[in-house]
Amino acid sequence: MLVVMDSDATAEQIQTVIDRVRELDLTPHPLPGATRTAIGITGNTAAIETSLFETLPGVKECIRVTKPFKLASREMHRDDTVIRLPQGTFGPGHFVVIAGPCSVENEAMIQRTAEFLMENGVRFLRAGAFKPRTSPYAFQGLGLEGLKILERVRQRTGIGIVTELMDSEYVSAVADAADVIQIGARNMQNFSLLRKVSQVRKPVLLKRGLSATLEEWLMAAEYVMSGGNYQVILCERGVRTFSDHSRNTLDLSVIPPCKSLSHLPIIVDPSHGTGRRAYVPAMALAALAAGADGLLIEVHPDPDRAMSDGPQSLDFAGFQKLMDQLQRVARVLDKSLN
Amino acid sequence: MLVVMDSDATAEQIQTVIDRVRELDLTPHPLPGATRTAIGITGNTAAIETSLFETLPGVKECIRVTKPFKLASREMHRDDTVIRLPQGTFGPGHFVVIAGPCSVENEAMIQRTAEFLMENGVRFLRAGAFKPRTSPYAFQGLGLEGLKILERVRQRTGIGIVTELMDSEYVSAVADAADVIQIGARNMQNFSLLRKVSQVRKPVLLKRGLSATLEEWLMAAEYVMSGGNYQVILCERGVRTFSDHSRNTLDLSVIPPCKSLSHLPIIVDPSHGTGRRAYVPAMALAALAAGADGLLIEVHPDPDRAMSDGPQSLDFAGFQKLMDQLQRVARVLDKSLN
Amino acid sequence: MLVVMDSDATAEQIQTVIDRVRELDLTPHPLPGATRTAIGITGNTAAIETSLFETLPGVKECIRVTKPFKLASREMHRDDTVIRLPQGTFGPGHFVVIAGPCSVENEAMIQRTAEFLMENGVRFLRAGAFKPRTSPYAFQGLGLEGLKILERVRQRTGIGIVTELMDSEYVSAVADAADVIQIGARNMQNFSLLRKVSQVRKPVLLKRGLSATLEEWLMAAEYVMSGGNYQVILCERGVRTFSDHSRNTLDLSVIPPCKSLSHLPIIVDPSHGTGRRAYVPAMALAALAAGADGLLIEVHPDPDRAMSDGPQSLDFAGFQKLMDQLQRVARVLDKSLN
Amino acid sequence: MLVVMDSDATAEQIQTVIDRVRELDLTPHPLPGATRTAIGITGNTAAIETSLFETLPGVKECIRVTKPFKLASREMHRDDTVIRLPQGTFGPGHFVVIAGPCSVENEAMIQRTAEFLMENGVRFLRAGAFKPRTSPYAFQGLGLEGLKILERVRQRTGIGIVTELMDSEYVSAVADAADVIQIGARNMQNFSLLRKVSQVRKPVLLKRGLSATLEEWLMAAEYVMSGGNYQVILCERGVRTFSDHSRNTLDLSVIPPCKSLSHLPIIVDPSHGTGRRAYVPAMALAALAAGADGLLIEVHPDPDRAMSDGPQSLDFAGFQKLMDQLQRVARVLDKSLN
Repeated sequence: MLVVMDSDATAEQIQTVIDRVRELDLTPHPLPGATRTAIGITGNTAAIETSLFETLPGVKECIRVTKPFKLASREMHRDDTVIRLPQGTFGPGHFVVIAGPCSVENEAMIQRTAEFLMENGVRFLRAGAFKPRTSPYAFQGLGLEGLKILERVRQRTGIGIVTELMDSEYVSAVADAADVIQIGARNMQNFSLLRKVSQVRKPVLLKRGLSATLEEWLMAAEYVMSGGNYQVILCERGVRTFSDHSRNTLDLSVIPPCKSLSHLPIIVDPSHGTGRRAYVPAMALAALAAGADGLLIEVHPDPDRAMSDGPQSLDFAGFQKLMDQLQRVARVLDKSLN
Repeated sequence: MLVVMDSDATAEQIQTVIDRVRELDLTPHPLPGATRTAIGITGNTAAIETSLFETLPGVKECIRVTKPFKLASREMHRDDTVIRLPQGTFGPGHFVVIAGPCSVENEAMIQRTAEFLMENGVRFLRAGAFKPRTSPYAFQGLGLEGLKILERVRQRTGIGIVTELMDSEYVSAVADAADVIQIGARNMQNFSLLRKVSQVRKPVLLKRGLSATLEEWLMAAEYVMSGGNYQVILCERGVRTFSDHSRNTLDLSVIPPCKSLSHLPIIVDPSHGTGRRAYVPAMALAALAAGADGLLIEVHPDPDRAMSDGPQSLDFAGFQKLMDQLQRVARVLDKSLN
Repeated sequence: MLVVMDSDATAEQIQTVIDRVRELDLTPHPLPGATRTAIGITGNTAAIETSLFETLPGVKECIRVTKPFKLASREMHRDDTVIRLPQGTFGPGHFVVIAGPCSVENEAMIQRTAEFLMENGVRFLRAGAFKPRTSPYAFQGLGLEGLKILERVRQRTGIGIVTELMDSEYVSAVADAADVIQIGARNMQNFSLLRKVSQVRKPVLLKRGLSATLEEWLMAAEYVMSGGNYQVILCERGVRTFSDHSRNTLDLSVIPPCKSLSHLPIIVDPSHGTGRRAYVPAMALAALAAGADGLLIEVHPDPDRAMSDGPQSLDFAGFQKLMDQLQRVARVLDKSLN
Repeated sequence: MLVVMDSDATAEQIQTVIDRVRELDLTPHPLPGATRTAIGITGNTAAIETSLFETLPGVKECIRVTKPFKLASREMHRDDTVIRLPQGTFGPGHFVVIAGPCSVENEAMIQRTAEFLMENGVRFLRAGAFKPRTSPYAFQGLGLEGLKILERVRQRTGIGIVTELMDSEYVSAVADAADVIQIGARNMQNFSLLRKVSQVRKPVLLKRGLSATLEEWLMAAEYVMSGGNYQVILCERGVRTFSDHSRNTLDLSVIPPCKSLSHLPIIVDPSHGTGRRAYVPAMALAALAAGADGLLIEVHPDPDRAMSDGPQSLDFAGFQKLMDQLQRVARVLDKSLN
């Protein structure tokens, strides 16, 4: 940590900072400069809030050098995390496609989609039983009945289930139905919910919040990991910017720094990220090329009649065409498509 | 609703849209233009998703004309909502100051702060028993014990309590302790939680999400109101932008359009909005001048030793000075300070 | 400057950084910490690019402690800059209103507006002869003819002229016609133009770029000042964010940090900032309360027939009403209006 | 264009809008709805400002249906623009790599880089003689001397030159030296400069402004095209968002909508977009996969000693490795690498 003093800080103010540092069992290193003094602090500063210094008189700012996340950090865990499930592996050399409709509309369409996916080499189905909707008047999902549909389809087809948990009340119901528990973007900083899933022993797919920095996202992962659940899969799904050319701004540029700061796998949701079916294939291919570990993608047997998110869902033919392209690009990048 | 066709849409494609409109018991109005045809739709389009048309062949885009919120809308409710509590009134002609520390640290400091506030004409205390923290390793609040402290201080001093609810598990505990239930920015789209507080008969202070548009914010209020709880107080607390001169970008510019679109009272939190004590008074005065109905502001007996958010808390002397300035500006704007 | 090493940087890599620091005639201060080493650098680091270190092996990042602007910085110039013109003073204790139409449409309307303003105690007229328009097909201003109109109106009425310079070709023409030369938001980083006006001895009103940080804005001021023109007036006019409730997001929150980092006066343009006449008065009052040194505001004799920016222009009656409110609030804040 | 009336607009107010539409020789189509009336307008509305209606009493908002750009629009020009130069072709089936150092530092390094590029199949060199720098104290480029170096290297090696124009004073000097004239992000809305290059008959590489929407960017292209210069190449180079994981947020998601709205080629600059050498290859590959028509990429013989932008420049070995990967991915996407 580095405490930067005002250019006209007094010797006494500098001494006060130094004393405060020592009170905390840390070591101060005063650095007198041309225009101001800075004070380096060494020792275990991770648990120290910068505010302890920022409010002292004569202090200009306080700069944290060490990142506040530990378990999610590559510095603490050099090798990439590999999450192995019966249906596929998240980690280096793999590219996992998770596909399906936005919501569980009825059993027939889920069954039909699952069969289609399995036939096309996709072994994870995504579909929401609980749907976070911006309007209280919109379709909110089938709830527990939806979960039961997913369980029956899993039993019949063997497909892996990825489904969203929105409410701590349903943790165990969702954990039972799901192979991977999804936490939505709007709940990325629902810390109560994160603590709940940190107690579960199922992988958690953690979507990036609409305005979350990479550090905040990794801190949310840290919440899950700090409770003992180390199987976190990050999912970029578009962020909120001034741009209006698509529903959100899909931020593929987060992938390389994420890989640099953390060992966790990261996948991309080009469907929510763009909000438009026509833009999905290009972004899906780009995600693969950018180094993502997989995709979360919306496909629907009849997107024009979907109960939610139809405009961003591929139909079966469009999806097959995309899988074919992904296959070819994955091959030259030495990745095996799930 | 307006469906805009591609400039080369065929007559058949246009007819398909018209037919779909009629299927939905709505009325289509084709508008052939110089370069393209648009189709106006009248009838009750509020429950219709634009996606029903956007995915039809030949459709360029679908523009919603009517806003999706109803109960929160000024069009449905011309007069300003007035929320009358024993300690003060939220509504035209009033300016309510809610002040206190970030978190309940111990009973002595809450008691001391409450007494100070009451002596200075402030009749609402803010303090968190449950604290949403970005780090799992940071102080998370005293929890239920904190609520009990708040209840005892309320009993002793008569001050109104504003405190945050983070988890649906604690709805009734928080509702018992609080005169106003606060929903934090990170939970603005925690729809489960919104539904829960929509069942309670206590006013809800709904903070704006870090990247929430005004429409999304009013839709969150709509969630609360749609369950029968019409006492919603909006609270601007800074949004996420590219700017790095303060912790968040306090968006006072949202006040006039909010007043125009909705009848709900809106207050401002300049403490979280700026993140720096030195910037708080200027923004507090600006909020008043911009037409806000009140403030949520952090004050602490000893900010430099606060367990959280010290750098943005005023001390008692700074707060008194600000109250004095607010008093004088409120007078010339014909508002009575709570 | 602080160079932060990777947690697994070798002793040799650390030594390379230390050597490079000494090569540059600066002093290195190694700070071995629990997880990594950091190296403080003292000496004149202002002209040093952080890239000189960031690319060395084992270096994680390089943090600049001293701000890169000098002449614009309050650290170099403690007292507020005061700009005194015959028509009014920009600086502490004053609040200058600059008003007028978006563009010079014809001589009659400029004359009429100038007379109206002078009668209402406003002694600076704003009006563009050159208009930056996003569409090449929109009205681009009267150009040199517009400047001549402004000069004649100035001669007849004595009003001060604030008008925009867009092209280095017209520096002397604009400098002759103007009492204050305006640099528009889109040209805030047109460094050629900034260098040109740095040679002129007329005050420069420098609008903030649509996505400029406070530091970049002050660096643009530094360009003007580094050429010897110290009379820079900053003007906040709204920035680009995700928010869609107004044309831009007027960022009043920049005022307190700007006052803290710099000694330059700062005014606010609530007309471009909001894009809607109805929102202008509230934001104008808020700017005054937030500590701004003045306003740049659009007023038009007949806004509904304006050739540009009509929707954000006040009419004469609306402007008078606002002036009256500003007058009353300025009084309690101990500021004298223009 | 669609004029939406307030829900309580009077019949008289509606009639006023209808009359105003007819005055403008356009056709009004009133659409009485359940809660409000809207008025569709047909005819040539492109030159009409929405403000003509927005300020009329009883009008809620005015929605433009037709995009304001024409020459840049795919609706006016179905086929992709193909720009053929002796050194390579911008257009479908091609992927052009433009590489080189940030700035012309001296003749030897430019010569050396040009030879290296030609040997590796790259036939366009980028290098700035004029450099836009945020600090007035930073290296500003060699200016005219830099242009002469570029001309000599072009003569000796045959490589195509892409270099930036910052000032209208140097239009012909830059046009003589360059095969493609670059307009930087900070000048995207320097309309004077755009008009100047619209008169030149050399292709223009138009970088996206730091906070430009796709529509504004295409309007800037329209400025160039409206003067008769149809050879515009768009270049995405990162935008300004809240994200802090890289210098800017490289917005690859703009590629598919850009291809949908416009026929112009679009390339990507992953060097400025990320600001970090280590992130460049992943983003370069992703740009190719996302459908870009080429890259603008920084490479330097000795990046750690570069006079500007060293941290984001690849060295020769890193560049060769990237070219090899691009080659393999381009092949499976049926694109030929320039």
